[in-house]
Amino acid sequence: MSKKLKTGIIGLGRIGQIHLANLLYHTPGAEVVIASDVSEAAHAAAKKAGVATTTNAEEVISHPEVEAVIICAPTPQHVPYTIAAAQAKKHVFCEKPLDVTIPAIVSAQKAVNDNGVKLMLGFNRRFDPNFARVRSLVNDGSIGDPHIVKVTSRDPAPPPLEYVKVSGGLFLDMTIHDFDMARYITGSEVTEVYVKGDALIDPRIKQYDDIDTAVIVLTFANGAIGVIDNSRKAVYGYDQRLEAFGSKGMAKAENNTPDNVIRFDDKGGQSALPLHFFLERYEKAYQSCMHSFVDCVLNDKPSPVDAHDGLMATVVGLAAGISLKEGRPVKIEEVYKRS
Amino acid sequence: MSKKLKTGIIGLGRIGQIHLANLLYHTPGAEVVIASDVSEAAHAAAKKAGVATTTNAEEVISHPEVEAVIICAPTPQHVPYTIAAAQAKKHVFCEKPLDVTIPAIVSAQKAVNDNGVKLMLGFNRRFDPNFARVRSLVNDGSIGDPHIVKVTSRDPAPPPLEYVKVSGGLFLDMTIHDFDMARYITGSEVTEVYVKGDALIDPRIKQYDDIDTAVIVLTFANGAIGVIDNSRKAVYGYDQRLEAFGSKGMAKAENNTPDNVIRFDDKGGQSALPLHFFLERYEKAYQSCMHSFVDCVLNDKPSPVDAHDGLMATVVGLAAGISLKEGRPVKIEEVYKRS
Amino acid sequence: MSKKLKTGIIGLGRIGQIHLANLLYHTPGAEVVIASDVSEAAHAAAKKAGVATTTNAEEVISHPEVEAVIICAPTPQHVPYTIAAAQAKKHVFCEKPLDVTIPAIVSAQKAVNDNGVKLMLGFNRRFDPNFARVRSLVNDGSIGDPHIVKVTSRDPAPPPLEYVKVSGGLFLDMTIHDFDMARYITGSEVTEVYVKGDALIDPRIKQYDDIDTAVIVLTFANGAIGVIDNSRKAVYGYDQRLEAFGSKGMAKAENNTPDNVIRFDDKGGQSALPLHFFLERYEKAYQSCMHSFVDCVLNDKPSPVDAHDGLMATVVGLAAGISLKEGRPVKIEEVYKRS
Amino acid sequence: MSKKLKTGIIGLGRIGQIHLANLLYHTPGAEVVIASDVSEAAHAAAKKAGVATTTNAEEVISHPEVEAVIICAPTPQHVPYTIAAAQAKKHVFCEKPLDVTIPAIVSAQKAVNDNGVKLMLGFNRRFDPNFARVRSLVNDGSIGDPHIVKVTSRDPAPPPLEYVKVSGGLFLDMTIHDFDMARYITGSEVTEVYVKGDALIDPRIKQYDDIDTAVIVLTFANGAIGVIDNSRKAVYGYDQRLEAFGSKGMAKAENNTPDNVIRFDDKGGQSALPLHFFLERYEKAYQSCMHSFVDCVLNDKPSPVDAHDGLMATVVGLAAGISLKEGRPVKIEEVYKRS
Repeated sequence: MSKKLKTGIIGLGRIGQIHLANLLYHTPGAEVVIASDVSEAAHAAAKKAGVATTTNAEEVISHPEVEAVIICAPTPQHVPYTIAAAQAKKHVFCEKPLDVTIPAIVSAQKAVNDNGVKLMLGFNRRFDPNFARVRSLVNDGSIGDPHIVKVTSRDPAPPPLEYVKVSGGLFLDMTIHDFDMARYITGSEVTEVYVKGDALIDPRIKQYDDIDTAVIVLTFANGAIGVIDNSRKAVYGYDQRLEAFGSKGMAKAENNTPDNVIRFDDKGGQSALPLHFFLERYEKAYQSCMHSFVDCVLNDKPSPVDAHDGLMATVVGLAAGISLKEGRPVKIEEVYKRS
Repeated sequence: MSKKLKTGIIGLGRIGQIHLANLLYHTPGAEVVIASDVSEAAHAAAKKAGVATTTNAEEVISHPEVEAVIICAPTPQHVPYTIAAAQAKKHVFCEKPLDVTIPAIVSAQKAVNDNGVKLMLGFNRRFDPNFARVRSLVNDGSIGDPHIVKVTSRDPAPPPLEYVKVSGGLFLDMTIHDFDMARYITGSEVTEVYVKGDALIDPRIKQYDDIDTAVIVLTFANGAIGVIDNSRKAVYGYDQRLEAFGSKGMAKAENNTPDNVIRFDDKGGQSALPLHFFLERYEKAYQSCMHSFVDCVLNDKPSPVDAHDGLMATVVGLAAGISLKEGRPVKIEEVYKRS
Repeated sequence: MSKKLKTGIIGLGRIGQIHLANLLYHTPGAEVVIASDVSEAAHAAAKKAGVATTTNAEEVISHPEVEAVIICAPTPQHVPYTIAAAQAKKHVFCEKPLDVTIPAIVSAQKAVNDNGVKLMLGFNRRFDPNFARVRSLVNDGSIGDPHIVKVTSRDPAPPPLEYVKVSGGLFLDMTIHDFDMARYITGSEVTEVYVKGDALIDPRIKQYDDIDTAVIVLTFANGAIGVIDNSRKAVYGYDQRLEAFGSKGMAKAENNTPDNVIRFDDKGGQSALPLHFFLERYEKAYQSCMHSFVDCVLNDKPSPVDAHDGLMATVVGLAAGISLKEGRPVKIEEVYKRS
Repeated sequence: MSKKLKTGIIGLGRIGQIHLANLLYHTPGAEVVIASDVSEAAHAAAKKAGVATTTNAEEVISHPEVEAVIICAPTPQHVPYTIAAAQAKKHVFCEKPLDVTIPAIVSAQKAVNDNGVKLMLGFNRRFDPNFARVRSLVNDGSIGDPHIVKVTSRDPAPPPLEYVKVSGGLFLDMTIHDFDMARYITGSEVTEVYVKGDALIDPRIKQYDDIDTAVIVLTFANGAIGVIDNSRKAVYGYDQRLEAFGSKGMAKAENNTPDNVIRFDDKGGQSALPLHFFLERYEKAYQSCMHSFVDCVLNDKPSPVDAHDGLMATVVGLAAGISLKEGRPVKIEEVYKRS
């Protein structure tokens, strides 16, 4: 890979800064030409690294040297910027979710296809070493046909209620990662979803028709059954585990900790709290994720997480919302056709 | 505990032999006076230990020295023998399930209450050191209010199809233990059940309206959500795990192995298969279970697993059957009232 | 194995009672004919099981039905009873150490050989499932040529000083098990020993020329290097671990706990204390050990732990004592020849 | 920390490149002004990052903007460059070992002290999250007085014989890290060392008076006993573990793996190989190490690994060499005074 991919970043919030640093320091195949943020205060890290900055996202897309645009703007801008970039013949890396409505996602997908550019979505967890290993064991047949896939995904603390109002709810904000993970691990499409959920941590969240605790059952086209358990608050910290059980065996990934020291005293053994939250837990995943994007563009490989993946994660999330509201299993085609 | 409880055993099949040995050699507070089995061949171990034998179960119940009857006969005889023993003022330890129909269970419960005797059901897994520890951590408030309880329960191999025909199906034959475990761990009643299941291991089982793979969601009166995953065939062996997640923390019990040796070579680390099946895995649990029965009778304590526990496990199993058939969540009261 | 081995037990202290129960209830190939203890109070359990009792050990040895004698008397009586039993053509199971002096051990060995009976020593740890698994991995070549063998052996609390006075000291009382384990795992003889030790727990023990903390380096004839670390007091309980490292890999056995539950709260993870002490930790090992003795007699197999094993463990212990006293590595032949 | 520390690097080999990247991208408090390497080919990464380059190490030391020199040159140049840098009033970070002879180390120490600059040695393992956690548990009294400290340190493959000739041997090339770790964990000085070692992996190494397998016993001034086990070749990969046992408990750090997935099939459980070698295993440690150096200079804190630490690690290594050669425990003062 001798040529470098010239990138531009839209949005230098928390996740934009991570992608900036990873492109600059951990992705030998990439350069960052320009980065935008409406707040000039966010420009500091980019400037320090010699990256041009602007408050106007359009300048990133239209910059003549930029070959790929990294979209880290708020969700409502994901599709508009993706379409604009595609029309400008720029490849796109876009944070998840692509959108929370099906027609918008489809329009982005069309723009990308029509203009022959790559689109990769930031489902970074696929690149976590634990989860990628489980996927690889499923993929190479080591566990046989998948029968049961289990995802445990718990946050250390609920987001502010202000955020809950606009986030699209638990399913589109948090579980969407788990829906993608379940699809990724089984290598199959979800056909039905059933949710049992409640507001066990903070009842006020019900005012926003949302929940903070859920068990979600997924049915897959290949016969596998999936189950996700979510909580907005695990007092011991971020809990991210996975298990794939099949006809020839089982693979399971445990949670990660900053160290593996066990201390024994007369009360028993004591071990560390988990890595605090997604920035720490998925540090390597964010790096591999960006490597993978640059690699797919430079070497003309298929996008490892494409618009269809974004579409299906959102569709499952919408079906989950209906299941919760109506207390019944919901077929995915019911939602998909409705769009 | 100076006085010894004088017991008689009905049924010397696999499980009867276990209880016999545990009463003889691991339960200092008990004696075995007489044991019955229709097959005289089954009498050998009892005779060797100086226990009187008979082919007639009624003789065990009516034996003047017998104070407590251990019922290990086939399921259809559980309730008749329980009622007969209760009427003879004998305490009863009965293998699970008490019965697969609600009225029969209620009639046994009534006989026991009317005659002032103890009835304990053989939900031995409650006495497993791992699971009892999780229960104790829930019970003492260590994990706070329970939010999510997860039970993994997988057998090493499916039973013969001949057995499946008469077993009452996955829910009443296998999952019934897990229903009881979920109730035990949460300390609360199930109010609703939803099942997603399939015959992924052996499609022939569908002929008997049964399945071999299931994910089951339970709703509890105290707000907790439970999830059980079952498989009739884990190629790596018997898999029995548990997790309780709550407002103050989480407790999880891993599967058990005969040794904890890890071997490392240039391929990675290798560890042992699990303990083969329930006899090995629950060896300690069977012993503690019988201790507990003898203790509750001798010291007039409440039965740790009573007729109500048997009733509820069966009711949840029946509701699960309806959920599977009709593809919808089923309220427990719907089944309970129907009886 | 249709025939039963008829045994007699000398000594019904703590360890004698364990062997009694295991012979009665866990060793189908054995019967217990008679048991002796100087204190009649110790006879209760034997009487309850229908075993004849006596205060005279000679009666056990001379009892016409007794085919094998289980010697659980104090150490100074091990050799005299072994010789007497051998001369009476009885097989012998003897608790360790056979003796703390080389000539006595050799005289027992001679009596056994001359009379064509079996002698097995109670190095029960060889039968622990963890350690037996490591041995089997060494034995079948899975780890290649052994290079380094590590034994961790720590007691939960030091014995009373009264006991230390007469026990033969750390090496002959406690480490002797570890010397045997190291020989067993490597399958090779110790050629040299070096000790660094101190009284770090209770300095009073130095009055008896003893120590309570030690690191011991062993050199083996096959080139392997062994290291044992001992402490008389691990506040977290009994700690028994093992590691064998070789040219093709490594096998390690961790300590055992009564349950494997981990609880996570906002302080971290908490796990159980180890199984309290040797009775709990080596419960299975004691059973397998007795099975093995009965099997070797009934089926005329070589004793799995013979007089030579007892001799070498003691010789290494004596060499360790010299090394500690003189602060230098000591060749085993230096001690062995001296005898 | 508003001010940036201006650094220059001498030597851009493997370790120099790591420090370069960490200073550039992971140490916000530092800048790299200039870097030298005799081979211009090594300059590429520095040039790319806008760092001036030279083939002359003296230019790095004398560069007027450079406040701290990072010495990654071959060992024989460590002391000369350290002295030159100190005389130029530059702070020094120097790779280990500072030197393999005591007088050279002392002369470096004197130069540093006389010129009032900081010297930190690259004992990076002190900054490994696992080991730092064990140190912290010892330091805060959680395990009480340390009694036994165990270090396992095994390489995945022996270095070329060419390297062995000039490396100073196992003790000064490999075990020196472990000597430092043992001192760090106990917080006490080694007073005596005993070595049992052999060439079990490749007998040719004996030609160079070296070994590839060793068990090393350390005695500490505070009474603790240490034991290190080394191998040049663990077929399963790099093995770096630690255990500290004391009067109030025990802390142990296990080896690290790239993922924590366990796969179970009908043969048992399989887990990952360890992180390959020191670059992967100590990635975080190298970063924290450099942070710590920059922090100690900018905020005038004591060097966390100073010349005395380098001196003692080397002295213990020299004593180990004598012990191996003469087959006896060697007092540290015997070596130290000899210098």
